[in-house]
Amino acid sequence: MYLARVIGNVVSTSKNEKLIGMKLMVVEFLGKNQVPTDHTEISVDSCGAGIGETVIVCKGSTARGIFGGEAPVDSAIVGIIDTVETV
Amino acid sequence: MYLARVIGNVVSTSKNEKLIGMKLMVVEFLGKNQVPTDHTEISVDSCGAGIGETVIVCKGSTARGIFGGEAPVDSAIVGIIDTVETV
Amino acid sequence: MYLARVIGNVVSTSKNEKLIGMKLMVVEFLGKNQVPTDHTEISVDSCGAGIGETVIVCKGSTARGIFGGEAPVDSAIVGIIDTVETV
Amino acid sequence: MYLARVIGNVVSTSKNEKLIGMKLMVVEFLGKNQVPTDHTEISVDSCGAGIGETVIVCKGSTARGIFGGEAPVDSAIVGIIDTVETV
Amino acid sequence: MYLARVIGNVVSTSKNEKLIGMKLMVVEFLGKNQVPTDHTEISVDSCGAGIGETVIVCKGSTARGIFGGEAPVDSAIVGIIDTVETV
Repeated sequence: MYLARVIGNVVSTSKNEKLIGMKLMVVEFLGKNQVPTDHTEISVDSCGAGIGETVIVCKGSTARGIFGGEAPVDSAIVGIIDTVETV
Repeated sequence: MYLARVIGNVVSTSKNEKLIGMKLMVVEFLGKNQVPTDHTEISVDSCGAGIGETVIVCKGSTARGIFGGEAPVDSAIVGIIDTVETV
Repeated sequence: MYLARVIGNVVSTSKNEKLIGMKLMVVEFLGKNQVPTDHTEISVDSCGAGIGETVIVCKGSTARGIFGGEAPVDSAIVGIIDTVETV
Repeated sequence: MYLARVIGNVVSTSKNEKLIGMKLMVVEFLGKNQVPTDHTEISVDSCGAGIGETVIVCKGSTARGIFGGEAPVDSAIVGIIDTVETV
Repeated sequence: MYLARVIGNVVSTSKNEKLIGMKLMVVEFLGKNQVPTDHTEISVDSCGAGIGETVIVCKGSTARGIFGGEAPVDSAIVGIIDTVETV
């Protein structure tokens, strides 16, 4: 899982029907000290995350499973971060 | 899932028979502000995407599942983007 | 699997309910001679690892399986390293 | 899936018995305009690809499935490219 | 699958019990002309590989399957290389 910041969302009218109703967010991954990296992706929100929030992103078949395993989802927001404590 | 732009397609006569009839597109992944990155791959279209369109690409076993799970597909175009809104 | 060092943890109140009670650690991956790399991620501890320890991180569906296969986990700490011997 | 060029092969006498008889090719991934990248890997040929040919490489559990799901294969050549057309 | 060189091993007393008895090797991935890259990982040996040998590393759920599917393994050494022939 990765720390990321929600920086936007996408609108897609023509898409796989199993994605209908899903919140397709744009996230940027965070590196050390939560500095943004160049890596961005589309992640489906599963916990009410909003723009600007720091979140946990889960990937791969595990992300698909969160939504029942049938939708074409390979990245999901699974938690909203309150605090990060690092040494 | 990743934002990408469709930049072409490939023709392959000699290929796995389960790929016959599939649209094998060349996509380049997009980074922040939708600036193209150096990453390109072959993605199978599942939603009528054309050259120049910005799309959502889904990867791994999830991409395979979109086509029934039997074809050797690990990347699929699952949506065409109308708009991207980022802060 | 990767060598990593545990450098912190995150607190998340609003998260997938299957993550409740799990220890969400921040790890930084180590390269040659155990020099820290720029790659960090969130990994769920399964063996009592503490801050500063060098650990083995396992990824993907394999990490999910460690916790029964239902929780949205794609990275897990599966061992604490005593020594690394390299030529 | 990735565009790659077949640049060689490996010989391995001591290997997992399920790999016996498989063609273990060395491939280099291609980037934009089919310029070779630094990424190379070992991919199992499933369609008679030869040295110098441009091919489609499929990865992960999908590659394993091509060979019945039992052999330790995570990368497979699934098509030989005739032409690439990009804008 | 990747070409890698075995450069060491790790000792871990406190680890997932299904890893007990496994040989946890440190491998560095090789790039073109077998030049070492900066990428290292921990890979479980399945074919008697020793320090200094060039090997084939298999990843992901495929690596897990080699050991019966229950152990937290996502990288495995599946062959020892005799020769690499590239153009």
